[in-house]
Amino acid sequence: MRDVAIIGVGMTHFGELWSQSIRDMFSEAALKAMDDAGVEKIDSLYVGCMSSGLYTNQEHLGSVMADYMGQRGIPAMRVESACASGGMAVRAAFMEVASGQSDIVMAGGVEKMWDADDGSAILATASDQEYEAFTGVTFPGLYAMMAHAYMHKYGLTREELAMPPVFNHRHAINNPNAQYPYELTVKGVLSSSMVADPLRLMDCSPITDGAAAVILCSMDKAKQICKNPIRIKGIGSATGPIALHNHNDLTRLDAVRLAGERAYKMAGATPSDISLCEVHDCFSIAQIIVAEELGFFEYGKGGKAIANGEATYGGKVVINTSGGLKAKGHPVGATGVAQLIEVVEQLQGRAGKRQVENIKLGMTQNMGGSGGSSVVHILEAI
Amino acid sequence: MRDVAIIGVGMTHFGELWSQSIRDMFSEAALKAMDDAGVEKIDSLYVGCMSSGLYTNQEHLGSVMADYMGQRGIPAMRVESACASGGMAVRAAFMEVASGQSDIVMAGGVEKMWDADDGSAILATASDQEYEAFTGVTFPGLYAMMAHAYMHKYGLTREELAMPPVFNHRHAINNPNAQYPYELTVKGVLSSSMVADPLRLMDCSPITDGAAAVILCSMDKAKQICKNPIRIKGIGSATGPIALHNHNDLTRLDAVRLAGERAYKMAGATPSDISLCEVHDCFSIAQIIVAEELGFFEYGKGGKAIANGEATYGGKVVINTSGGLKAKGHPVGATGVAQLIEVVEQLQGRAGKRQVENIKLGMTQNMGGSGGSSVVHILEAI
Repeated sequence: MRDVAIIGVGMTHFGELWSQSIRDMFSEAALKAMDDAGVEKIDSLYVGCMSSGLYTNQEHLGSVMADYMGQRGIPAMRVESACASGGMAVRAAFMEVASGQSDIVMAGGVEKMWDADDGSAILATASDQEYEAFTGVTFPGLYAMMAHAYMHKYGLTREELAMPPVFNHRHAINNPNAQYPYELTVKGVLSSSMVADPLRLMDCSPITDGAAAVILCSMDKAKQICKNPIRIKGIGSATGPIALHNHNDLTRLDAVRLAGERAYKMAGATPSDISLCEVHDCFSIAQIIVAEELGFFEYGKGGKAIANGEATYGGKVVINTSGGLKAKGHPVGATGVAQLIEVVEQLQGRAGKRQVENIKLGMTQNMGGSGGSSVVHILEAI
Repeated sequence: MRDVAIIGVGMTHFGELWSQSIRDMFSEAALKAMDDAGVEKIDSLYVGCMSSGLYTNQEHLGSVMADYMGQRGIPAMRVESACASGGMAVRAAFMEVASGQSDIVMAGGVEKMWDADDGSAILATASDQEYEAFTGVTFPGLYAMMAHAYMHKYGLTREELAMPPVFNHRHAINNPNAQYPYELTVKGVLSSSMVADPLRLMDCSPITDGAAAVILCSMDKAKQICKNPIRIKGIGSATGPIALHNHNDLTRLDAVRLAGERAYKMAGATPSDISLCEVHDCFSIAQIIVAEELGFFEYGKGGKAIANGEATYGGKVVINTSGGLKAKGHPVGATGVAQLIEVVEQLQGRAGKRQVENIKLGMTQNMGGSGGSSVVHILEAI
């Protein structure tokens, strides 16, 4: 299997992009990534997107995007794994380069969410339609059950649960692409509208328009054309139960643990090698459980550790320097790719005021549904 | 790049499967394929599906299907390229095996179409939403323009245009999985309801529920566990214009030509090496143009050649022994995979009354939209 590197990245601003269609957004990110890599032609394209059919009445995004970005003729396909679509698009692109079939492959992600008027129902198609969505449960509802179970089992307080969003917003202030780059306090979280008890509005990632793209390249070629290629050292991916009621324990996300274990094994790394990690904080409770499943904290101790500052600058591991899904924004199909962009920029030393010093390895963790799927990447500067 | 083989196949009946949900159908096909291959565990899963969100309100099919077929934990993703989703799922699975990442990977496809009441609008999401679908044009309308252009340019008669469906139905009579296994005459085509002039109902592939799955395996391992592995000798994939008005010539499908050229090059083969081919006859005119783009007939001569019997048993190449999309049925996400199943069974000599003798190489051609994407596979018995 050939070594694979990332040689270019590009993304749109994340937010309410009323003036851009889904193809406008994707093309902007794609062309920025190609400029960044210094390439004018790609061999193949993977587009991560959860639900463009329901959001915009446009499927067939591989063809649409290859055409509109000026690369008509190349192979192209869309990849979907709910909110993990972006990360899985990168995994699929990795396979094509690793196999030797292609040298330069783009993996991008996009979601146009603000145009739809039934966003919760669309997002619910990532859950078990027959046993969950059909009964009326929404994603905040599913994660609320996980939050209650965790708080009960481990004694996490409501104030501690508010801390992942607080840190994510603090980090986002330094991210020019973030949707909500403002300070958030615990009081701000606790006084926001109730969505699904105990989760309030400021526990939940927002509705976001946006796109992101990275260019993958065989390492041999990358060393010729790029001065700072970033190696994809490990990839792990896994599925879990599509329905929350099939979890053995509501406070665990087995797919995240499995994906992490597989990525660590491929990379020959352990949690202590990870300097920074972008995690899938779709809800405040998700960030806590994910940080535990990835091995950064023991089960039941992640919530208090994060509240105590062990996952921000100077802590054990810096989580979500970008602001995470909560503050950077969460255009679901783009999120997994944008996570990689943050880690690439950190490893290349161009993260500006967000820069983490002395990075050993960087990691991303992207998730679909209530743990129905997850994908983890481990990156290294060479 | 490692050699890759198909070691097992399975599919549902194609038709109106009112008693089966989308997950029931996929699981049936998947478990049949695993039985056929003699494996109880797969390493990874790709699910081709065009529009499960719009048809069934269920996205996240990788997780759903891995879970319901009893393989929870494996990596899984959905692949979408409109009606070429199935073929592209096989391409993605091929890359994972070829790269060395996994040994045994399932590529399947599924579509549950009969439950929706706005099928034409859903299918139109495979066209250019902003410039085509939004104006009200449907897929029969797009292909009708191609048919008119071809008939005008090359003098094809309405009776000749009816012949691909006539032959496809004749072949389907021997296919126990076909949706419409009955004889169809030219008169039957010409007296069917007008859909979009000149295309009548019997020029159009039907609405179909169904699923199909194949198991890919590294050739080294395949030779140990399978007595008749089928080598994937060539794969070619390409995009074309998403919108019909961007075609340079309405009688051409550039993505099909490009995909064919790439597959022939990879396989070291030419059109004369192909004994049988499953083509994407979504409409009668499509079968004619595709047969020309794949090099079986000269431009403008495919329609008359097919009408003269040059693409049935005893002809230059046997096209659509399965009955094709028209008579076997066209559950869009499953179609590309079902095409491979037909060719695998032919190459293994287990196609029953449909058997073609003395096969050199077999081919499949799967297409999305009005030529927005296409993927071609060339298969060989070893």
